[in-house]
Amino acid sequence: MNDNPLIHDRTLEFLLYEVLDVERLCRMPYFQDHSRQTFEMFVGSCRKFAREVLRSSYKPMDEAATSYEGGRVVTHPQTGELVQGLVDLGLVNATRPYEVEGQQLPSTIMLAANAYVTAANLSVQGFCMLTTGAAHLIEAFGSDELKETYMRRMYAGEWTGTMALTEPQAGSGLADIQTRATPTEEGHYLIQGSKVFISGGDNSFSENIVHLVLARIDGAPLGTKGISLFVVPRLRPEGEELLDNDVDTAGAFHKLGWRAIPSIALNFGEEGRCRGYLVGEPHRGLRYMFQMMNEARLGVGASAMATAMVAYEEALAYAKTRPQGRRFDQRATDPPANIIEHPDVRRMLLRQKAICEGALSLLLTSAHLLDRAEHGPEGEDTLHAATLVELLTPIAKTFPAEKGFESNVLAVQVLGGYGYTSEYLPEALLRDQKLNSIHEGTTGIQSLDLLGRKVLGTGGASLVALSQEFEQSSKLAAEAGVPAGWGNALMAANRRIADVTATLGARALEDPTRGLQHSVDYLDMVATAVLAWQWLLMATAAAEGLQTGAATDKLFYEGKLKAAQYWFATELPRVTTLADMITIGDDAFMTIPDEGF
Amino acid sequence: MNDNPLIHDRTLEFLLYEVLDVERLCRMPYFQDHSRQTFEMFVGSCRKFAREVLRSSYKPMDEAATSYEGGRVVTHPQTGELVQGLVDLGLVNATRPYEVEGQQLPSTIMLAANAYVTAANLSVQGFCMLTTGAAHLIEAFGSDELKETYMRRMYAGEWTGTMALTEPQAGSGLADIQTRATPTEEGHYLIQGSKVFISGGDNSFSENIVHLVLARIDGAPLGTKGISLFVVPRLRPEGEELLDNDVDTAGAFHKLGWRAIPSIALNFGEEGRCRGYLVGEPHRGLRYMFQMMNEARLGVGASAMATAMVAYEEALAYAKTRPQGRRFDQRATDPPANIIEHPDVRRMLLRQKAICEGALSLLLTSAHLLDRAEHGPEGEDTLHAATLVELLTPIAKTFPAEKGFESNVLAVQVLGGYGYTSEYLPEALLRDQKLNSIHEGTTGIQSLDLLGRKVLGTGGASLVALSQEFEQSSKLAAEAGVPAGWGNALMAANRRIADVTATLGARALEDPTRGLQHSVDYLDMVATAVLAWQWLLMATAAAEGLQTGAATDKLFYEGKLKAAQYWFATELPRVTTLADMITIGDDAFMTIPDEGF
Repeated sequence: MNDNPLIHDRTLEFLLYEVLDVERLCRMPYFQDHSRQTFEMFVGSCRKFAREVLRSSYKPMDEAATSYEGGRVVTHPQTGELVQGLVDLGLVNATRPYEVEGQQLPSTIMLAANAYVTAANLSVQGFCMLTTGAAHLIEAFGSDELKETYMRRMYAGEWTGTMALTEPQAGSGLADIQTRATPTEEGHYLIQGSKVFISGGDNSFSENIVHLVLARIDGAPLGTKGISLFVVPRLRPEGEELLDNDVDTAGAFHKLGWRAIPSIALNFGEEGRCRGYLVGEPHRGLRYMFQMMNEARLGVGASAMATAMVAYEEALAYAKTRPQGRRFDQRATDPPANIIEHPDVRRMLLRQKAICEGALSLLLTSAHLLDRAEHGPEGEDTLHAATLVELLTPIAKTFPAEKGFESNVLAVQVLGGYGYTSEYLPEALLRDQKLNSIHEGTTGIQSLDLLGRKVLGTGGASLVALSQEFEQSSKLAAEAGVPAGWGNALMAANRRIADVTATLGARALEDPTRGLQHSVDYLDMVATAVLAWQWLLMATAAAEGLQTGAATDKLFYEGKLKAAQYWFATELPRVTTLADMITIGDDAFMTIPDEGF
Repeated sequence: MNDNPLIHDRTLEFLLYEVLDVERLCRMPYFQDHSRQTFEMFVGSCRKFAREVLRSSYKPMDEAATSYEGGRVVTHPQTGELVQGLVDLGLVNATRPYEVEGQQLPSTIMLAANAYVTAANLSVQGFCMLTTGAAHLIEAFGSDELKETYMRRMYAGEWTGTMALTEPQAGSGLADIQTRATPTEEGHYLIQGSKVFISGGDNSFSENIVHLVLARIDGAPLGTKGISLFVVPRLRPEGEELLDNDVDTAGAFHKLGWRAIPSIALNFGEEGRCRGYLVGEPHRGLRYMFQMMNEARLGVGASAMATAMVAYEEALAYAKTRPQGRRFDQRATDPPANIIEHPDVRRMLLRQKAICEGALSLLLTSAHLLDRAEHGPEGEDTLHAATLVELLTPIAKTFPAEKGFESNVLAVQVLGGYGYTSEYLPEALLRDQKLNSIHEGTTGIQSLDLLGRKVLGTGGASLVALSQEFEQSSKLAAEAGVPAGWGNALMAANRRIADVTATLGARALEDPTRGLQHSVDYLDMVATAVLAWQWLLMATAAAEGLQTGAATDKLFYEGKLKAAQYWFATELPRVTTLADMITIGDDAFMTIPDEGF
């Protein structure tokens, strides 16, 4: 094993303190006890655990995978202690308020710390992330009793949690959820139904598993407006005892990656005695879920970024030490060059860097906006942040998932034949990455969220907010001495996006299907510009760093400027190609007869 | 298991007889005994075996994988009889002449038949393809004794063959091969060295394994000009006996896909008694290899195409039968629509179709050119075919490998969560596909072959030959009533490519590194245009079919025209983006300091 840093420390520091100036958050009351020092302590302890403990556990846990024996899932024997390690670091409730034993840390800092953890072992991190998500739902919408009984134990790491949404017949179509909840006179509901793809839906280390289940109360309205949210524990606490709650682990899916966290099919109430406890009010389940959606989707994006980043670091370390072939300017008698000296290997490495660091920057920016939106003072700035994070979330989820996958593919390619073997990590990371374009809303669903809900649904207001950011960033970039062409190119792309959006808005008014049918291309286009914006922000900070920073950082800052140059030269021009294509609105895939496929 | 057709019969028939008019080959003496009837018999029998026998073996063989026990590889118990089945079909030497028991079939027909076989079980096909490649080398360059002893038994399927090029320290850098061959007085050589990534390098079903090994005769010149080719059998025939030849199976690589054919590390001559037999003349080994390269690389391209195609068919079958969600024009009370009705699913399916069928068309076109180049009458037409197939080979290898992988990714995505599980085939096919951008020359190497050797190395003559084809095809397309914009767009792309090539030629004269550093982008650009040409050919035949063909084929032909429309609207414009980028010649990846990564 090489000494893969998982995430490049100096890059993270640069993003947090030079690009984002995250310390400003400490002026907000919620974060007032914090400082750069407390941020660094938290990130540092997570980093240490990730590097010294988690990293070496990844490969054996991937190889062993989880199994399904005697109706239960068997997780790798190390899993429990590793999850406990993360709980001890405070990772399950770091951002939550003091009254629920949290640390009131910014999501930005949480994301930074989590990046190391995820890059080291995403399955172990997955158990924690799911527990956080489920507990947070109870915290936000549950009764005091539910909080006392479930949330506290989940935040304390005693019990794990899951999100149980998907059903076999419905998939992404949540409107067709059939799991039933029948009210009883004792106040609880009886739950009956089947769920699939429940990550962490069973394990062999935690005392209890708390499922947050979407179900339909008898007589509820059709569609998404009749869905309620329930706490359904595997074991039901009664006094000091934990009683079986008729939740059956029906099977485990064999899957491509994430092999140390099981994906489970669950049957609730096969014997008619599965109790569920309503969270909040009836029929509002999906709304509750959606209020946690930004967090969950940024979580997936962050996981995707980390999975691409650790592979990039593997490829980089390999390229720097693997001699093979010669440069054109070498003679046959010269020893072979390290492959980092070959142009196409450099191209693949810079592309990975541009994708991975761009994604990290976007995710930290989004989390920073979320912190401002949730904890900033009432007023325009906070509303602006809220609008922006809503807009950016589908991009911050999808760009790392889709382009991150491309980056993972390039990492395999850099290692050549060895990349195809499990002697090295990239093939496993490639397998892990593929899930991220599917779970927590597929790329298609994210693109409809972006174009339909976030852009057209706000009458374009969210795009205006983004334009303001682009403009401001371009101005600051020019002042810092960044090549003027970059800011101008971003503003030109921005105008094209505005035009395309107006065209699609008009089209959608006439015919929603036609207006939205290029939504994935639209997301790709906007994401490409958003990443150019991120690289402009980084280039600005790098240009300033070159003037005022330490001499030892010179090559570091030059690296950032080169990656920015790459993005502006190679990727941003795609905005034009995509804009043309969307504007023309080619409909071949709509008009081809089914029999013509 | 659904009834996946592996390859769509009507599409293959269309390509062979309506687009390519492959029967014309029968006018050449080598193919004179053949007719559409004999072609169809051969393809039909391979198809039947692929569908009825091979297809169901794929999944269990992927799941069991090969293992390494007691110094030998254990292949799946079915492997031997399945390989024998392919041998019985004549698949190992179908294109070879009668005097070596071949059938003198065109490579075009062989590729068509092989497509079904590969789509059904690429590992089993792999054993045969490797045996063919190795035997063909002996046939072309070996002595009569080598042919008698080895080639005949390999073509007869008694012994399998491998290609042993790669060494652990050298990878793709064949100039650094260190395996030694020491002459003896008895005429044979003593071989000593290590090879890695030898596909089919060991198995537990064939009586003997014949390795075609690149090695350096003691005192040979440095670099690629000192490499010779040897036959090195695992067991050495002596009289009626087979004696151990000191070839040791040192280990097996665990790998992402192709799990039923092992990738092996071999040690030759650890005890100093490994005998090798020189093929042809000393120091010409790499030249011999390269004369087989077109065949081998088209083989990889064909495998990549088949791997993408079978996944496309899986996704298509799933999309047609999986109800989920509703169209915008449906009401909540309507039953869910099959997902093929959702725009983005249609987009993903049409993109897969355009890639897969485009790749199939390109591969058949290339094989057809190879047949003409090898067996046509002396003259300009034959030279033209030879020039074209040289040019197209790196594209016909790389496009299916790279875009085929994207197509495999889309197949997983269409199946959503199920696509990530091994309940369905796409995840396994995705794993298989990734090898194709790596083996038999990585994408980077193919791109240098295209730009450096095939284009600039011919002074642009090969591009002129391609331009003639584009022009001719555009003219015929216009006559057939294909939208005039398509032919015009192809010719415009062609002019851009010529301009870019001239620019790069001038640049390479000054500085080879600068001239070639965008070679992968160049390959992408040319491939995009070449695929547009293929879709223009198919559109032409489809337009003619709509006028003169059977009414029952109407939707089939419309499907081809829609896929062509998709390619011209969505992909061909990328030529401009790439041409701009290459012309500007951004050098960020060359000028970034190593420490800046």
